[in-house]
Amino acid sequence: MSNDSDFKLYGFWRTSSTYRVRVALRLKGLTAAEQIVDLEKGEQLSNSFLAINPLGAVPALVLKGQAPLTQSLAILEFLDEKVPEPPLLPTDLLGRARVRSIASMLACDVHPLVTPRMRKYLTSTGGFDPSLWRAWQIHWFTEGLSAVETRLTSDPETGRFCHGDDPTLADVCLASIVEIMHAFDIKTEATPTIDRIMDNCRTVDAFVLADPFRQSGAPVKSDSAE
Amino acid sequence: MSNDSDFKLYGFWRTSSTYRVRVALRLKGLTAAEQIVDLEKGEQLSNSFLAINPLGAVPALVLKGQAPLTQSLAILEFLDEKVPEPPLLPTDLLGRARVRSIASMLACDVHPLVTPRMRKYLTSTGGFDPSLWRAWQIHWFTEGLSAVETRLTSDPETGRFCHGDDPTLADVCLASIVEIMHAFDIKTEATPTIDRIMDNCRTVDAFVLADPFRQSGAPVKSDSAE
Repeated sequence: MSNDSDFKLYGFWRTSSTYRVRVALRLKGLTAAEQIVDLEKGEQLSNSFLAINPLGAVPALVLKGQAPLTQSLAILEFLDEKVPEPPLLPTDLLGRARVRSIASMLACDVHPLVTPRMRKYLTSTGGFDPSLWRAWQIHWFTEGLSAVETRLTSDPETGRFCHGDDPTLADVCLASIVEIMHAFDIKTEATPTIDRIMDNCRTVDAFVLADPFRQSGAPVKSDSAE
Repeated sequence: MSNDSDFKLYGFWRTSSTYRVRVALRLKGLTAAEQIVDLEKGEQLSNSFLAINPLGAVPALVLKGQAPLTQSLAILEFLDEKVPEPPLLPTDLLGRARVRSIASMLACDVHPLVTPRMRKYLTSTGGFDPSLWRAWQIHWFTEGLSAVETRLTSDPETGRFCHGDDPTLADVCLASIVEIMHAFDIKTEATPTIDRIMDNCRTVDAFVLADPFRQSGAPVKSDSAE
C-alpha cells in the first residue's frame, strides 16, 4: 500500500477536508497521487468526476478496484485502522472519545458552514453581499475556535498537541480549520493554546507539506494571506 | 454500567444529535436518566448547564466522575467500543469506512446547517424572513437526503438497513435526520430506499422509543407534523 499507484486522492488545494486526508496519509507514511478537482470551476459536478464519485464531493480516496472512500472523518478512521502506527487515536476509550469530540467540533461544527456550496447558496438565494458573507465566515470560525480553545485550555489531557504529546485526529482537524482560515485571510480573537499547538504541528513534515499554498493549483501566497 | 445512575444524558426532545445518542444507548441495552436542556429557552447557556458542559452544547453524556462526553459521533463510537454487542460498525475496514461515510453525510453535511444557532444567525444578522429560513431548511434536507438516497440505491452493500441487514451508525444518523425533518414538517423529493430503510428502523424498539415526539418536553404531535 506504500506504492503511489495504490491510492489516488481527488481534492482541491484549499479544501479543509482534503487537507485532513493529505496530513493523515503522510503521518502514516503513505503517499497518494493527487488529482485536482477545481471546485471554483465546478469540476466536482463534471461528468468525468461524477464517474469517479457520483456524489460529486471531494475528497475521494480511491484504492484500486474499490469504490471511492469519501468523507474525511471516515477516511481518517480508515487510515488509522489500516495502518495502526503511529496511532491517530489514544488507546483508552475516554481519550478516544475526547479526540473524536474535538475533531467533530471542527470538522462538523465549523467546516460545513464555510464551504463553497454554502457561499453559493448564501450569495445567491440568501441574498448575502460580500460583506455579509465575510461576516458569516468570521463568525463561525471565531465561534468554533473559541469553543475549542476553551476546551483545550481547561482540559488536563491537552499536551504539546490537542491530546497528549503526539498528533491525533484532533490536531489534523484543528490544523485543517486554522490553515483554511489563513487561506481566507481571516483572523479570530486570541487563541493562545491553539496557536501553541499549531506551532507544534508546523514542526511535523506531514502538516507542513499539506499546507494548502504548497499544493498544485494554489495561487502564490500573498503577504496579506499569511 | 447498566444502572441508570451511571449515565445522565443532557438533551432536548427535538435535537437530532440527542436522538442519535438515545437510539445507540438502547441498541446497546443501556439506559440513561435524561435531563432536558431547553434550547428554545437558551438553557444550554445557563450557568447551571455551563457548570456541566462549559461548551454549552447538547447532547452531553455524563458518566459519574468523568468529564462529559460531547459530540454525537464521538459518543456513538464510544458506546460501540464500550459495549461491543450488538456492533454498530461492520468488521471489515471498507465496510466501516462506508458506514462512517454515510453517517458523516448526515451528521456533518446536513445537521449542522439546520440547528437553532443557524436559525438564530440567519434570522437576525442574516436578515432571513421565515420563508427564506424555511427554504433554507428544505434545501439542505433535500440535498443531503438525495445524496444519501443515490448512494444507498446504487451500492450493493445496502440491505434491509444502510449497510447489510442490521442497524449501524449510518441508520442511527439517517433516522436522526428523517425524524427531525418530520418534526419540522418538511418533506423532500421521493426517497424510496431511505423510506424502506426507515420502515425497517421503525420495527426496532430503540428507534421507536427515541422518537422526538415521545420525549419529555415535546409538544403533542399534530396531524400536520406526521
